[in-house]
Amino acid sequence: MRNEKTDLLRGLRAVRRFEDRPIPEAELTEILEVARWTGTASNQQAWKVVVVRDRATLDALAECGVQHLAQAAVGLVIVSPGTIPELEAFDEGRISERMMLAALAQGIASGVGWFKNGGRARARELIGAPAASAVRTAVSLGYSAPGAELGRHRRPLAEFVSERSYS
Amino acid sequence: MRNEKTDLLRGLRAVRRFEDRPIPEAELTEILEVARWTGTASNQQAWKVVVVRDRATLDALAECGVQHLAQAAVGLVIVSPGTIPELEAFDEGRISERMMLAALAQGIASGVGWFKNGGRARARELIGAPAASAVRTAVSLGYSAPGAELGRHRRPLAEFVSERSYS
Repeated sequence: MRNEKTDLLRGLRAVRRFEDRPIPEAELTEILEVARWTGTASNQQAWKVVVVRDRATLDALAECGVQHLAQAAVGLVIVSPGTIPELEAFDEGRISERMMLAALAQGIASGVGWFKNGGRARARELIGAPAASAVRTAVSLGYSAPGAELGRHRRPLAEFVSERSYS
Repeated sequence: MRNEKTDLLRGLRAVRRFEDRPIPEAELTEILEVARWTGTASNQQAWKVVVVRDRATLDALAECGVQHLAQAAVGLVIVSPGTIPELEAFDEGRISERMMLAALAQGIASGVGWFKNGGRARARELIGAPAASAVRTAVSLGYSAPGAELGRHRRPLAEFVSERSYS
């Protein structure tokens, strides 16, 4: 059943392969503007976003665990303070989701991933973030390559929604 | 500068006081539908959402640390497996953001909060979630009380965006 009001929200797909084509600066700025207005748990807004465009850095970051960055037109790497991992991860989830929806609203595809294990420290070095910071999450932006959208199996509503008492 | 494509995404405000007025079932179902299609890190979709409507349970949950639930028309409590806190928190951030945007798209206000310390175990008991699960995040839904929107100070773009090298 279609609902026009929520079409955009339902339409987000993870993409991990992109065309070799840049995205316009105006669209990128709008994605960052939307990120700017994302609410965060502490409202301290202590996070930053590092915009990565050059291929060599994107390739090196891909090897830190977020493979789809290797094809992205632009990579957005979130830098958090590195003090409360659970809370920062929550905020990063909110920010990532917003940035991906802002991309989609403008016809740009996206994927999100985490740097893994030692990859976090290496990614932190690559972008020059402070030693105490946490570099956990990156969003890839680009135009979707043909057939690049991942499958969309989802559980039926009844399987994940309960009324008050868990079942 | 206004951008129609991303109006919805820019428009989300945290609300913590709600009118004493129910929200329609169709709108609630649509919010849960949007949640259903949220991508999650593992794609295991191991989380659940518990819908809480009765005032006594909402009041009791509010005392577990998410105070705005006391006035919410409906509370949506996310139940995660309780195995990898950081990753689950990330997914909960994504899901919360989606649910709040789906509410906004339909004119419904929302707030999000975390259960704190011992409040997590108490909230888990209140909704009857499994002992091993994590009950961390709740979203309050309702119609915004007059003057209930929180302030919107945000840092300028230049303060949180860096080009490749951190500064």
